[in-house]
Parts: sequence; structure tokens; C-alpha cells
Amino acid sequence: MLASVFCATSLDGFIARADGGLDWLPADGEPHGYEEFIATIDAIVMGRNTFETVLTFGEWAFAKPVVVLTSTPQRFKAPAGADCQFMGGTPLEVIARLSERGFRHLYVDGGITVQRFLAARLIQRLTITRIPVVLGSGIPLFGAVDGDILFEHVATRSYASGLVQSEYRVAGGGVLR
Amino acid sequence: MLASVFCATSLDGFIARADGGLDWLPADGEPHGYEEFIATIDAIVMGRNTFETVLTFGEWAFAKPVVVLTSTPQRFKAPAGADCQFMGGTPLEVIARLSERGFRHLYVDGGITVQRFLAARLIQRLTITRIPVVLGSGIPLFGAVDGDILFEHVATRSYASGLVQSEYRVAGGGVLR
Repeated sequence: MLASVFCATSLDGFIARADGGLDWLPADGEPHGYEEFIATIDAIVMGRNTFETVLTFGEWAFAKPVVVLTSTPQRFKAPAGADCQFMGGTPLEVIARLSERGFRHLYVDGGITVQRFLAARLIQRLTITRIPVVLGSGIPLFGAVDGDILFEHVATRSYASGLVQSEYRVAGGGVLR
Repeated sequence: MLASVFCATSLDGFIARADGGLDWLPADGEPHGYEEFIATIDAIVMGRNTFETVLTFGEWAFAKPVVVLTSTPQRFKAPAGADCQFMGGTPLEVIARLSERGFRHLYVDGGITVQRFLAARLIQRLTITRIPVVLGSGIPLFGAVDGDILFEHVATRSYASGLVQSEYRVAGGGVLR
């Protein structure tokens, strides 16, 4: 199993404003490799907060199965027409369960969820697209970890709009058992 | 007057460990444009914390005048042989005073000092070199600001060692009165 993070952050490392707001993201439609990335994954794993933000967007826009992590999975049901399920457990348990189902590459998304998987050292690929703005506060991509996590730089691309996208893989390989 | 930030951060935005430790910075001697940058500045402005960290390095390694910001400048004296002075005041007062002395380009360094100058919207250039490591905690480059600060991407360079350096200028120009 591979688990990847693919996200945009402000220069100061926020993925959203404190209220979840994404108004600071560019709306110009310039492609930044999201479609290509989604084509490589088997499922999207996100936290309940991100799920609820996504619901406010109206239409369900995910081309792959979505797994929503929550400590109370029985309280939720999938939006109409969505391939979406709810799951509790630690990151390792979630990965083990999804691995049994034949998933090989997970897209881990959302602040707390990314932080939990990183802290559990279960992220192998990191693609961060930096938006040239300092927000000063918000929901951070990174949180506390138990010891340094070393990455190797794979590639960096810059875009006409000022976005800079860097791709990393965890040092020492990192395909999960 | 121009004021620039030129610094290295971890992927999660720290410029040092909580105790000031810089052991996670690469020690390979690969040049990352520091000498070229220093050649363009007239003085280095740093906080008292950074000054005290610098003192532990032993030799005074600055090729340009150093201005140390502290609320108690009278308590300090310059290390032997160092072009170093101590100054109180707000970022705007400091810039006005240094401008009167004929300085035209300041290098603003150190966590709290960078944050104060950014919050006062007195930084025009930002060069951030990202080290491919997640530390989880430490002294952050960025702090709270009163409203978004927009930047324009100037250039990004990646290095064999995995470092990625991005250069930004504040949107809308920004040469100080």
C-alpha cells in the first residue's frame, strides 16, 4: 500500500482558513496535475471535517471511492449517488482494512487526517502546491510528529500563476507491509 | 528601502528546533545563493534570540553590518571586531533610522523579527529554501498577520541535495517610503 498527500498550502503552511475557507485558492482553472494524480489512486481517505466541507460544495466531485474517517461511522450515510463509506480506527487499522479490499494507493486528505497518517509514518508521497500568499492563521497541513521525517525531493514545477508544486517521497523507500 | 527575508525552513515551516537547534540543516557546503544575496544588502537586522544563537557559533561570520533588535539595547555590547549595534523600536522606526543612515536594502533574519516585519508589511522580498524534512515542532518562520499578504513568484530553483528555493516579491511592488 502507498499513501499520498496532494494538497495546496499557503506560504505559511495552511490548507484552509480557520473556518475551512478556501477563497484564497486561485480560481483560474490552470491545471496542476490533480487529474493525473487522481488517476493513480484507488481511494480517497479524508476526515469528517473535510467531508462536511466537501458537502457544502453541492455536487459530489470525486472520481474515486471516498473513505471518511470518524469515530462514529454509524451516524453518517453516503450522499446520494456517491461511492462513500465511513470508518473508524487508527491510520494503521484503516490501511490494513483497505489493503484487504485490494486498494493499493490511497490519497490521504484533510488537515487532521494528514497529520495522523504522517505522525504514524504512513505517508510515502507528498505533493505540496504552494500558493503565494501568507494567511497568518488557519488549518495547518502539518502537526506534531514523534521525531524527524526525512523526505527526498522528486520534482518541482512552477506555474504561470505563481504556484510552485514540489513532489517528495519519504526517505528510505516506504512501501508499506 | 527594501527589506528581504532569506532563510531555510523545514517542510513544515520551522527555521530552527524549539531550542534553536539547526542540526537538521544540510552540512554539505552546496551553495544556495547566500553569498550572492549578502552582496546585495547593506545590513542584517536580527532579533536578540538569533544574535545569541549566532554568538554560540564562535567566530563572527557576517560580511555586513549587523543590527540587533532588543528592548534593552544598553545592556549589550558588540563582540570584539564585529560591526554590530543594538537598537530598540518598532520595525517602522528601525527602518526609518537605518534609512537615514543611507542603508537601502536590509536582510531581516530570525523568527520573531521576521514575523514582526511581515506583520508590519515591511518585507518586500522573500526567499525560502525548503529542506525536505518534517520536524513537527520548532520556531516557525511565519506568525500571525493582520490580513492576507499576497506575493508574486519570481523564481524557483531546486538543488541536487533536495533543497528547493523559491523567491517571491510582495504583490503590488513595495518600495518603502
